[in-house]
Amino acid sequence: VIAALGDLALDVANLDRPIAGVASLTTATGDHLTFAAGLKYQTALEQTGAGAVILPQVPELVALAEARQLSWVTVIDPRLAFARAIGLFYQPFRPEPGIHPTAIVHPRAKLGEGVSIAPFVTVYEDVVLEDGVCLLPQVSVYPGVTIGAETMVHAGVTIYPDTQIGKAVLIHANATIGADGLGFVQTGKGWEKMPQSGFVQIGNYVEIGANTTIDRPAVGVTSIGEGTKLDNLVHIGHGCTIGEHCLLCAQTGLAGGASLGDFVILAGQVGVVDGVSVASGTVASGRTVIRQTIKKGQPLGGDPAMPLSLWLKLAAKLKRLV
Amino acid sequence: VIAALGDLALDVANLDRPIAGVASLTTATGDHLTFAAGLKYQTALEQTGAGAVILPQVPELVALAEARQLSWVTVIDPRLAFARAIGLFYQPFRPEPGIHPTAIVHPRAKLGEGVSIAPFVTVYEDVVLEDGVCLLPQVSVYPGVTIGAETMVHAGVTIYPDTQIGKAVLIHANATIGADGLGFVQTGKGWEKMPQSGFVQIGNYVEIGANTTIDRPAVGVTSIGEGTKLDNLVHIGHGCTIGEHCLLCAQTGLAGGASLGDFVILAGQVGVVDGVSVASGTVASGRTVIRQTIKKGQPLGGDPAMPLSLWLKLAAKLKRLV
Amino acid sequence: VIAALGDLALDVANLDRPIAGVASLTTATGDHLTFAAGLKYQTALEQTGAGAVILPQVPELVALAEARQLSWVTVIDPRLAFARAIGLFYQPFRPEPGIHPTAIVHPRAKLGEGVSIAPFVTVYEDVVLEDGVCLLPQVSVYPGVTIGAETMVHAGVTIYPDTQIGKAVLIHANATIGADGLGFVQTGKGWEKMPQSGFVQIGNYVEIGANTTIDRPAVGVTSIGEGTKLDNLVHIGHGCTIGEHCLLCAQTGLAGGASLGDFVILAGQVGVVDGVSVASGTVASGRTVIRQTIKKGQPLGGDPAMPLSLWLKLAAKLKRLV
Repeated sequence: VIAALGDLALDVANLDRPIAGVASLTTATGDHLTFAAGLKYQTALEQTGAGAVILPQVPELVALAEARQLSWVTVIDPRLAFARAIGLFYQPFRPEPGIHPTAIVHPRAKLGEGVSIAPFVTVYEDVVLEDGVCLLPQVSVYPGVTIGAETMVHAGVTIYPDTQIGKAVLIHANATIGADGLGFVQTGKGWEKMPQSGFVQIGNYVEIGANTTIDRPAVGVTSIGEGTKLDNLVHIGHGCTIGEHCLLCAQTGLAGGASLGDFVILAGQVGVVDGVSVASGTVASGRTVIRQTIKKGQPLGGDPAMPLSLWLKLAAKLKRLV
Repeated sequence: VIAALGDLALDVANLDRPIAGVASLTTATGDHLTFAAGLKYQTALEQTGAGAVILPQVPELVALAEARQLSWVTVIDPRLAFARAIGLFYQPFRPEPGIHPTAIVHPRAKLGEGVSIAPFVTVYEDVVLEDGVCLLPQVSVYPGVTIGAETMVHAGVTIYPDTQIGKAVLIHANATIGADGLGFVQTGKGWEKMPQSGFVQIGNYVEIGANTTIDRPAVGVTSIGEGTKLDNLVHIGHGCTIGEHCLLCAQTGLAGGASLGDFVILAGQVGVVDGVSVASGTVASGRTVIRQTIKKGQPLGGDPAMPLSLWLKLAAKLKRLV
Repeated sequence: VIAALGDLALDVANLDRPIAGVASLTTATGDHLTFAAGLKYQTALEQTGAGAVILPQVPELVALAEARQLSWVTVIDPRLAFARAIGLFYQPFRPEPGIHPTAIVHPRAKLGEGVSIAPFVTVYEDVVLEDGVCLLPQVSVYPGVTIGAETMVHAGVTIYPDTQIGKAVLIHANATIGADGLGFVQTGKGWEKMPQSGFVQIGNYVEIGANTTIDRPAVGVTSIGEGTKLDNLVHIGHGCTIGEHCLLCAQTGLAGGASLGDFVILAGQVGVVDGVSVASGTVASGRTVIRQTIKKGQPLGGDPAMPLSLWLKLAAKLKRLV
């Protein structure tokens, strides 16, 4: 196992132990590999039942592993090595290629090689599924959608017309891609619908969480950049532009026309107001509300958003007010 | 095209240009129609590649369009005119009438004329689908539901028993209408369920966003008034009463028994506490929490909700505290 | 009817009246049973059209019921008695046992007696459905899932591999159980996925709201304790541990690795930060953000969370700042 970590490994010891799986420090038993990311896990490492451990280059931890006669390996990034170790023991569910006889695939849909279509999938006209696409049960793909190679779409996902999805994208169950944005014009008598004629574009290697929604705009495109990861129950409003390698945690929402640069991290339940731009490298802590354009990537917190250090001071001060 | 805007047009010029589509100011090319809603779009109008533009009656913008030799039309409300112009070029996806052979429709369901039922739809007993109803794939309609004429229900929507839905309603994918409200009685040993025997009633012309949930109450009705629009991931608790022509943006939630008057606007991620009433005409900005009854329609912000002007002052003052 | 309340009844009068149903004080008519939970319903009781009423042992209310010649019964907990009374008139929708011919059930799935499987359900290999399990249309059960006796799963729910669900659980439509947690390691070039090889475990008598998501962890388990109730659009991050008999209201979210004790109540739109522990008996009001471990069960409010009484004072004080 440790050999398979390959170029990550810096130094190793006591490798004469069979490893049957991976586990956390607190639940591992003798044939498990675990990891300690730093000194704050020292106590847990003293008590772990694991037989093998991935460590950072921290002498105290290495000495402790030696003293406990554990197998160990040191690496630059223990979490990354542990991620790869999990992959040695676990293969996520992915059905074999083939089209289930119950699936309804329009004759004008175009399918690549090795496509897998599960029961009760509906694929409408002019859809393109590239090689190795995998659609789980109950997926609905409306007309004109393109899905790139090796992309996997879990059960119950609905993809509205003309959505363009890149390759090796992973979409979790019950997400909705390309539904109408909330576009209405107030007329005094109520709301007149502005037709949402645009489409959604999703880059390669994007991951979209369960029950997340990404809306189509009135005109133009709502786009999610390559490598960006969206958690569950996230809302991306119509006409938003999200850069590459962003990470948006659960229940975060972007109102219409908001834009994020690259490598933006929004923790859980963050809100971004309509039309606001957020600079690359911004990191917003949970529940931040970004109401104005952020020109420089930085840690943020609070409502309205302010530099995180300022918000932490303010939160402390407020408690003392009472 | 401009002719088709009909009674909206006030004044026009240079109409000798073919228009192939609509686009925003920044993405339009020569055969596109676009719009500028006011003076703040002046720079974008100077730079647009559009061939034709919808304008308000603002002399500077009209002069600029003339100088650039664009086709132009002036109207009272450019957004409304643009909404109608989109409708000239774009027809949203709506399958033809007919019942797909895979659909399971109970013999005791009653179907009007021109109904469209897609693959893998389940319609239980005593359901009524009026003329022109359109159910997309994987929709489940539980017993006793009534759906009014021309209503469209997107893929994966589940409608619980006895829900009453009006005409020309639009329900987006994976919404859940009429699931049990969170009704439990604390018994010391845990929670005993209060059966949720009521139902949900949805008025004509309502739009319901993707993955939105509207709960049935213990007794009585949860109701959404005519013309009200709900965005994605909205939660309407059991026994809520929402008036006509309200607009609720994404991730907003109403706890049980809350009520909204007419023409209430709640921006994104707003919360309304259980049993609270919100007066007609209230406009709550994003992330507002309404914890007490609001007797007079007004702009609100903050938590707990206060007049918006007060909240803006408070937010500014708080930053200066540190 | 009142006889059926059995051991809850303390005292009764005027039982010579047929009861056809249950309703709230304000909507009940002469053949309805209603309830008044305390003195604050006195005015509503004076005006109700109900023929029968469940009351607490409050002499003023009993005298009022007598004066109005209503049938009445006194109980310790009128809401609990009303919950049981609803159950006398209302049976929630639950299809008969039997497997619909359209359902796809893998030959290696193991089904107990009296199982009910609706149209277009997909059950993968090595699934166990114990006696009386009921799957509504479009449910997808991935390989290796176990579902306990009498559990009911509403339409469109997706259950990922190896999820373990207890008995008499109720899962509402379009919930997603066991999707990948948001586990990624930042590599400088973007995000590398940490495979989510763990699983989700759900105790007996749990209820899960519509469109709620519960994620699987990288290793180990995400667990929901017996009798806990989750509302709609709730997010439970990977590796969370929730105790018994908790109540989580709509749009509340727990980040990864958070843990709740027993009998914790989180009102709507609450957030709990990753890795934070919340003591048994904690009651957080709506929109609270719990950013640090709570060692003693108590009422909480605000962001960051503080004792509720403190937060109420602070909120009042803040308004006066302006």
